Amino acid sequence: MILLNMNENNTCPFCNTDILDYAFLESNNFLAVYNIAPVLPGHSLIIPRVHFTSFMELSDGELYEFISFSRKAIRILSGVFQTESFNWILQEKEEAGQTIAHMHIHIIPRKPGDMPEPGDWYPRWKNNISHLIDSNQRPRLSRDEMKTIVDRLRKAAADAVS
Amino acid sequence: MILLNMNENNTCPFCNTDILDYAFLESNNFLAVYNIAPVLPGHSLIIPRVHFTSFMELSDGELYEFISFSRKAIRILSGVFQTESFNWILQEKEEAGQTIAHMHIHIIPRKPGDMPEPGDWYPRWKNNISHLIDSNQRPRLSRDEMKTIVDRLRKAAADAVS
Repeated sequence: MILLNMNENNTCPFCNTDILDYAFLESNNFLAVYNIAPVLPGHSLIIPRVHFTSFMELSDGELYEFISFSRKAIRILSGVFQTESFNWILQEKEEAGQTIAHMHIHIIPRKPGDMPEPGDWYPRWKNNISHLIDSNQRPRLSRDEMKTIVDRLRKAAADAVS
Repeated sequence: MILLNMNENNTCPFCNTDILDYAFLESNNFLAVYNIAPVLPGHSLIIPRVHFTSFMELSDGELYEFISFSRKAIRILSGVFQTESFNWILQEKEEAGQTIAHMHIHIIPRKPGDMPEPGDWYPRWKNNISHLIDSNQRPRLSRDEMKTIVDRLRKAAADAVS
């Protein structure tokens, strides 16, 4: 079960508690959230529950939790999406392309031949705008589609713990 | 001083001890290395000394060292290149675009207006080929240029420790 203890920030989509519907893994300070407009199947975000804007703001303890948690989320995505390949992207500040000022990393599982060239994820991904979770220029999953995939990921997360 | 204790792997450019000339920060298991063909000023790599192919192979201890070390390297780059903005990219396996099978992350410091659009780093960066440190399709720094910048970064790293 995902606990609801995020900071409230009315202007930040990652502080919107609706995001909890899309979370499939949690730790004390972090959530792994499925992207409503995935660039490729499995595209997810790791975000802190608290409204940090920057990776550099994390305490040493939070930093360790973040990296351990991220790797755990990657293992779950690897199992569900049947691949050990992924892209990991962090953008710090607007000039680096950060569109939502709440720290987040993107994890995009990859498979051979999923795109004509391995680098083709980028132009599809960069058409981001500041919208709940991610772009509304890419096709967005329906609520049912999101529920199906998030339930599957939550089950994999529960299995990984037990 | 950068210690020379990397594993030998004749086919891997990141196991080539020449890379130590470009290292500006070290820990027991990691090096921060300036990119000889930087996409933008400050473009550097974090690599393990040992020939791990994957981020997922790191032990928990190495994982913590990696993330602490990476943040320290970012702080040094931030100071020298006068910005707190950066892109962080990890590509796992060939289908994600990994061209050198030795784990590495790219850190690219960013500044307002450094490119027409924040995302323009990508097409310039993705023209990688498997070559010592990075692309030989982008302009490469001379040995003197590399020495100047690496010395400056090493001094900043030494100042950060003292």
